[in-house]
Amino acid sequence: MTVTPGATLRGLRKRKPLVHQITNYVVMNETANATLALGALPVMAHAREEVQEMVRLAGALVLNIGTLSPHWIEAMLIAGREANRIGVPVVLDPVGAGATTYRTETAKRLLAEIDVAVLRGNQGEVATLVGVDAEVRGVESIEVGGEPADLARAAAANLGLIASVTGAVDHVSDGRQTVSVANGHPLLAAVTGTGCMASAVTGCFVAVKRDDPLAAAAEALVAFGVAGEDAARDAKGPGTFHVNLYDALAALEPDDLDARARVSRL
Amino acid sequence: MTVTPGATLRGLRKRKPLVHQITNYVVMNETANATLALGALPVMAHAREEVQEMVRLAGALVLNIGTLSPHWIEAMLIAGREANRIGVPVVLDPVGAGATTYRTETAKRLLAEIDVAVLRGNQGEVATLVGVDAEVRGVESIEVGGEPADLARAAAANLGLIASVTGAVDHVSDGRQTVSVANGHPLLAAVTGTGCMASAVTGCFVAVKRDDPLAAAAEALVAFGVAGEDAARDAKGPGTFHVNLYDALAALEPDDLDARARVSRL
Amino acid sequence: MTVTPGATLRGLRKRKPLVHQITNYVVMNETANATLALGALPVMAHAREEVQEMVRLAGALVLNIGTLSPHWIEAMLIAGREANRIGVPVVLDPVGAGATTYRTETAKRLLAEIDVAVLRGNQGEVATLVGVDAEVRGVESIEVGGEPADLARAAAANLGLIASVTGAVDHVSDGRQTVSVANGHPLLAAVTGTGCMASAVTGCFVAVKRDDPLAAAAEALVAFGVAGEDAARDAKGPGTFHVNLYDALAALEPDDLDARARVSRL
Repeated sequence: MTVTPGATLRGLRKRKPLVHQITNYVVMNETANATLALGALPVMAHAREEVQEMVRLAGALVLNIGTLSPHWIEAMLIAGREANRIGVPVVLDPVGAGATTYRTETAKRLLAEIDVAVLRGNQGEVATLVGVDAEVRGVESIEVGGEPADLARAAAANLGLIASVTGAVDHVSDGRQTVSVANGHPLLAAVTGTGCMASAVTGCFVAVKRDDPLAAAAEALVAFGVAGEDAARDAKGPGTFHVNLYDALAALEPDDLDARARVSRL
Repeated sequence: MTVTPGATLRGLRKRKPLVHQITNYVVMNETANATLALGALPVMAHAREEVQEMVRLAGALVLNIGTLSPHWIEAMLIAGREANRIGVPVVLDPVGAGATTYRTETAKRLLAEIDVAVLRGNQGEVATLVGVDAEVRGVESIEVGGEPADLARAAAANLGLIASVTGAVDHVSDGRQTVSVANGHPLLAAVTGTGCMASAVTGCFVAVKRDDPLAAAAEALVAFGVAGEDAARDAKGPGTFHVNLYDALAALEPDDLDARARVSRL
Repeated sequence: MTVTPGATLRGLRKRKPLVHQITNYVVMNETANATLALGALPVMAHAREEVQEMVRLAGALVLNIGTLSPHWIEAMLIAGREANRIGVPVVLDPVGAGATTYRTETAKRLLAEIDVAVLRGNQGEVATLVGVDAEVRGVESIEVGGEPADLARAAAANLGLIASVTGAVDHVSDGRQTVSVANGHPLLAAVTGTGCMASAVTGCFVAVKRDDPLAAAAEALVAFGVAGEDAARDAKGPGTFHVNLYDALAALEPDDLDARARVSRL
């Protein structure tokens, strides 16, 4: 694993991968704009009639269960299976897993039926999916007990994927290697959908670094966290922070990114 | 009735109630961010498979008919009945009632089948629901004839709930007591979804002051109106105003709120 | 054809037409806010139960296929037929036509079954609909080969409508007369949904200048482009640009608009 967010971002802006997102109503505009600001191309498409064809154009598929309903789950399964068949990496954001049985069961079903490359969730969501007790209230992140690094490691090992567990400090693991990413800013927790944006950015990075999804997932959190740090600079609250975040994603300097990365191998 | 917006906001930020919102596609991100900026936790969930379970976690349920379709109405009924069963207060925003038969009939059906604590609408919408003639064009607020205080009083008495009728000056009534709230700013009418945000904020306040929904509804409009006043200060138009509104909601000072409240008992 | 954006904008702000939009989840808030900022009234309604009634209140109907599913297509057909029956002009935005068969076929079906006044799309989308080969990757605009003026002229002539083809320079044609509009700013391409906003603004202008949709479509692009130029002035990136865009739409001066129009007859 080589964590080189600057080089990956440079490649992303050159290749402009299409990132197919089947995501929730609340954040669609936000994740599309984050994807575009970073330098990739977003596309939102959820009809069962077109997701197979759309995912074939994509560099990555991001599935997000934030506002579920049965038709959408079907579309996620169709798109996910096709992505697996043709080798397009899948990122899953299990929004609200643990809050309701429907969300928990849907996240588990997606994990069972689709080969997910990266699971990007908060501690409560990921803990739910590996059977650790967690208080999940709605969809906002709440810290759970225990070491988040252990949680990431356990999730990765048990589920056979890259676990990307975000929080005050993020932890990314493939079950053997685990890294922490300490970039970011508390204001990220004051805006709805920043977790979903982190998942979309993860999709962007995985699209251009398919052979090392562990590094790609960590690099995505570096880039998104650094943008959060930059966005906070002139922010007067969550509104201006949110706006600045798109400016900051667009202004990310690949040359600075490696130096600003606060990544530790655990 | 004691109108103490400062104390209620302080309680809200301490308890961080979950506010379950089944709302329209246009404003989901906006009402979620307003809820979060104020200090509560939003959750958007509309699947019939999960709304019962989700509302059990909530301090209030906000129903908003801004972009209706049959499945969503069913979900609102399921969630509303469960909320009633377990004592979670329900706020209804009858967006566009009067514009189409479908909206009017749906709003009436929700009022008939669910015990609504607070009806938060503009004059045209509320007038429609109490049988007063009103010109409703789409979903933007248009002033109707007559005294809005009388409209609020009549709606409250006829429908057996707290009527929260917003406009240049807002009027909140339980049918016996009526208060006006003169906080706010004209730019609120220049941004889509500010009425929906007012309903979400009403849900936040009702969640922490269940025993006095009349006061809670008025306090919510004070808080939202004061935030609007603050947001307007540096705004250059509806775009910057909209962004500032989240900053202002997050920056609301409980200690100032009572003094800045422009509430009159009628 | 007389291109007088200032006079049309003045009329729009006086008459405040309701613009009924059946559009995609990603941009609903954005197109509603653009419509409102400009001075018209947006309404989003997609239920088959109400679209007929809603479109009867409207000055224009905007159909946008950005996030399709079968129910929405049905609603578009119902609304479009009713609009045709009563003489309400229809604007179609064929988002992503060419990217998937479903989008291409849906756009063609809407064009076949509804009398569309203005087709507003990017070069790839419009080229797809007139059978010209185009690389369409997702929904972001990509320049295609050939002269865009020829594309607009061919689309207008073949499809029997006003073709409004946007890009670095926009081209609007009725098949005989063609104009280019060189207003705008590169940052418009850095924000998701600005094409959809251009379609909504086209609906606003067509609503008040029904007898000359060619001029109205060109004027809409002048107004939107000038707003883009103004929005770019203090923008630090796509986030602040996006916010400024609403301020700029609201601040558009009818008196300046004619002088700032960069329209050429080809």
